[in-house]
Amino acid sequence: MTLPALQSLCAYARETAQLASIDALLQWDERTYMPSLAGDYRAEQISLLARLVHQRRTNPQVKEWLDTLAETLPPGDFNDDTHTTVRWIGRDYSKQTKLPASLVEELSRASVKGQQVWVEARKLRSFEHFQPALEHLVHLKQQEAAALGYEDDPYDALLDEYEPYGKTQEIAATLEGLRKELVLLVQQIVDSPRKAPIAALHGSVLPTRQEQFGRIMAQAIGFDFDRGRLDVTAHPFCTTLGPHDCRITTRYNESFFPSAFYGILHEAGHGLYEQGLRPTQFGLPPGSAVSLGIHESQSRLWENQVGRSFAFWKFAYPHARQHFAPQLTADIETVYFAINHVQPSLIRVEADEVTYNLHIIIRFELERELLSGNLPVRDLPEAWATKYQHYLGVVPSHASEGVLQDIHWSAGLFGYFPTYSLGNLYGAQFFEQAQTDLANLDEQFSVGNFTTLRTWLNDKVYQFGQCYMPGELVQNATGRPLSHAPLLRYLRNKLSPLYGL
Amino acid sequence: MTLPALQSLCAYARETAQLASIDALLQWDERTYMPSLAGDYRAEQISLLARLVHQRRTNPQVKEWLDTLAETLPPGDFNDDTHTTVRWIGRDYSKQTKLPASLVEELSRASVKGQQVWVEARKLRSFEHFQPALEHLVHLKQQEAAALGYEDDPYDALLDEYEPYGKTQEIAATLEGLRKELVLLVQQIVDSPRKAPIAALHGSVLPTRQEQFGRIMAQAIGFDFDRGRLDVTAHPFCTTLGPHDCRITTRYNESFFPSAFYGILHEAGHGLYEQGLRPTQFGLPPGSAVSLGIHESQSRLWENQVGRSFAFWKFAYPHARQHFAPQLTADIETVYFAINHVQPSLIRVEADEVTYNLHIIIRFELERELLSGNLPVRDLPEAWATKYQHYLGVVPSHASEGVLQDIHWSAGLFGYFPTYSLGNLYGAQFFEQAQTDLANLDEQFSVGNFTTLRTWLNDKVYQFGQCYMPGELVQNATGRPLSHAPLLRYLRNKLSPLYGL
Repeated sequence: MTLPALQSLCAYARETAQLASIDALLQWDERTYMPSLAGDYRAEQISLLARLVHQRRTNPQVKEWLDTLAETLPPGDFNDDTHTTVRWIGRDYSKQTKLPASLVEELSRASVKGQQVWVEARKLRSFEHFQPALEHLVHLKQQEAAALGYEDDPYDALLDEYEPYGKTQEIAATLEGLRKELVLLVQQIVDSPRKAPIAALHGSVLPTRQEQFGRIMAQAIGFDFDRGRLDVTAHPFCTTLGPHDCRITTRYNESFFPSAFYGILHEAGHGLYEQGLRPTQFGLPPGSAVSLGIHESQSRLWENQVGRSFAFWKFAYPHARQHFAPQLTADIETVYFAINHVQPSLIRVEADEVTYNLHIIIRFELERELLSGNLPVRDLPEAWATKYQHYLGVVPSHASEGVLQDIHWSAGLFGYFPTYSLGNLYGAQFFEQAQTDLANLDEQFSVGNFTTLRTWLNDKVYQFGQCYMPGELVQNATGRPLSHAPLLRYLRNKLSPLYGL
Repeated sequence: MTLPALQSLCAYARETAQLASIDALLQWDERTYMPSLAGDYRAEQISLLARLVHQRRTNPQVKEWLDTLAETLPPGDFNDDTHTTVRWIGRDYSKQTKLPASLVEELSRASVKGQQVWVEARKLRSFEHFQPALEHLVHLKQQEAAALGYEDDPYDALLDEYEPYGKTQEIAATLEGLRKELVLLVQQIVDSPRKAPIAALHGSVLPTRQEQFGRIMAQAIGFDFDRGRLDVTAHPFCTTLGPHDCRITTRYNESFFPSAFYGILHEAGHGLYEQGLRPTQFGLPPGSAVSLGIHESQSRLWENQVGRSFAFWKFAYPHARQHFAPQLTADIETVYFAINHVQPSLIRVEADEVTYNLHIIIRFELERELLSGNLPVRDLPEAWATKYQHYLGVVPSHASEGVLQDIHWSAGLFGYFPTYSLGNLYGAQFFEQAQTDLANLDEQFSVGNFTTLRTWLNDKVYQFGQCYMPGELVQNATGRPLSHAPLLRYLRNKLSPLYGL
């Protein structure tokens, strides 16, 4: 289509994306290579770019192009690149201009302050120290939800930032079904006399050897190092700086190689999604990831459904022996059971594949109550402890291993947590369907062939960018709406034989 | 001073510098860590930022502030921070707005094209292949000089970009004096029966060991790794991304450690200047390097006057033995003679401390003749060969080891070359004065103490940024105008005993 307004809108959006991708480089560098004393100036550089990007996204000229297109764009396929572009840029403009500048500034200040206070409070193990900052943040997020508007639930307005058009009620129902089944499964595993031989995975391994192994595995599943990198950081992440520049990061635990290894597979999974988006659409909605949930579905699918399968280990085991000998002496069956270790614990980021979702569900339930006002902030630690006792059978002994463990709320990120579990659910449902559609995936994995699966995911998910909503991607790929059943089936099928359930 | 126009001008200039420093990060990353296929998009990001920076530097609002200040700024010390800021921003605005946009664009295109053709021509060893592109570039640079304006010599207008307010006639006279003496000195060395034992420095040394040694030495002379980094690249450089973020780079020759080692000292010398500029003035003229010549004076002073001295090697030798054993078996006297090896050769970037200046003088003489029109581009290879024969006694066997060896002209960099030799001259004159002002520098070097010298350079050079012109810095620090005598004395004093002259 050669409408001038469309061309102008796209060129403008691409240029905005160039600035945003430069911002991503500033942040990547800050977290990998920046000298220790350079932080203050880097914060100024980042804030300048954020301002430039915000100015462009709220430029009334964008509204003019959109208005022209509302009149002149011929009706067509709702999901084609053109309509997707116009629809999402319109959505973005509308959201960006709904928030009063004063609220945006106050939220930015409160989130910087919140993170500072949170760091102190964690050291002090004192929720009281953090409480006033959190109360202020909850208050601001309530205002934000009101300004953005919603139909059913104020939580929808915040969730929408991470899982566009997500419906809190639907997600709550799905997670509720998941929770009930998981609590039962965890109890069965805890009651089982069999214990995973986790000690088999401990032992000192040089970071350079871990890195070599991680690179081989990331490359094997399809991460393209000509279009990406792997570096070291304190809190691992994946970021994209251009259509052919996706960077993943990890950190190395010298005495427990699975930390970095599964970290690399996880980030490489994010990377496969990013590298699977169409480069020609970079910076435009059809070339952008659709939601954090779908993003997380790919990191978790490659980390867990693939990386914790016995078939994968048939391929990986000789490599692991080669890189981790003499520390790794266990046989493949032992390694397989050990990497599928399940054990209720207090810390989300250290949780296994099963209990992880209960950590998320607790946070989702609590943040909904905080935002609705049903749960006063001061009562949060007690509510936290009650839910941990109820769902996982463990109780934190102090706030730093309880409510203060995550940075999210201190940074104003409310509505973010459920996307982790949505990722697990999407991922399991995609993978179950891929197993049905594709013959003998296990055989392929066991010889290091992951192309068929990656191509399937490309066809069903990656290539579409934002052309389809998360729910549509799931429905189109699997023929059914999202359900907790595939994840449960996957977990039970794998863990029942291991734990003798 | 609290003039509103001054505050606005400074705030605006600081923000422009933030964008320029972000551009520096994009370029640093491109040359160190960027994935191989990410180049096209990176070029777009860089060109977007260049456009934003150019828009800001030519914004008529800048002119309004400057006009207001021309009327309201109280007279004061010409060299204080305020007057320096206003003077240099005025100079920059005036220069930026003198060039017609069409010429800027054509120069940019011709320089991109010129570099592409140059790469091909080098492979083909064919000057004819490069000749039309060079003719076009010379023509455009003549137009640029005319647009910028000049008093005495069109070359002044181009030199001014790298050596502000530099006078071609003065530089030519100084370099002419230097040339005559150097040709004599080189001839004496060539005629000497003594030969530097350069073979003593050859031997395979792992890059990781070379890097460790280089870091220790860079840190010893004062490069602050909390405010900087050292990384690997193909064509080493030093760049600054913020008031506390100066990054140097090197490349490792596995069979000849002095390449990377002197490369690191050279870049660390640039880094000491950058790290010695006042952080509070970052992005403003008083916090910016004054000229390429002064910059090069610091890289060369630390590389040569310090790093090739016997006193320095008393300190460095045990470290070198520790890192390079068993490849380095020669005694300290042998190492010292070997690193002061002098030998006429064809390639500038491989030249020693003495002959290097003759390579530069040849280029300076030739590019002046090209720009004046006295030398037609087609006659350049012959003129090149004649001068090499005359000054160095060597003649290239093909264009790629002759006139095609440097990228500068293909990228439109005319007026750049003399700053290399100016750096050697400034550096030698500063160092000679420092030796007079400071007692027993040699004793300090031999125990790894470089603080006194660095402090002297800070006091005389670094702290002033652009508050003084290069000539003023030299005059103020040494009490005399720039002369070729200190460099000659330094070279003769060092080389006469070694070569028995």
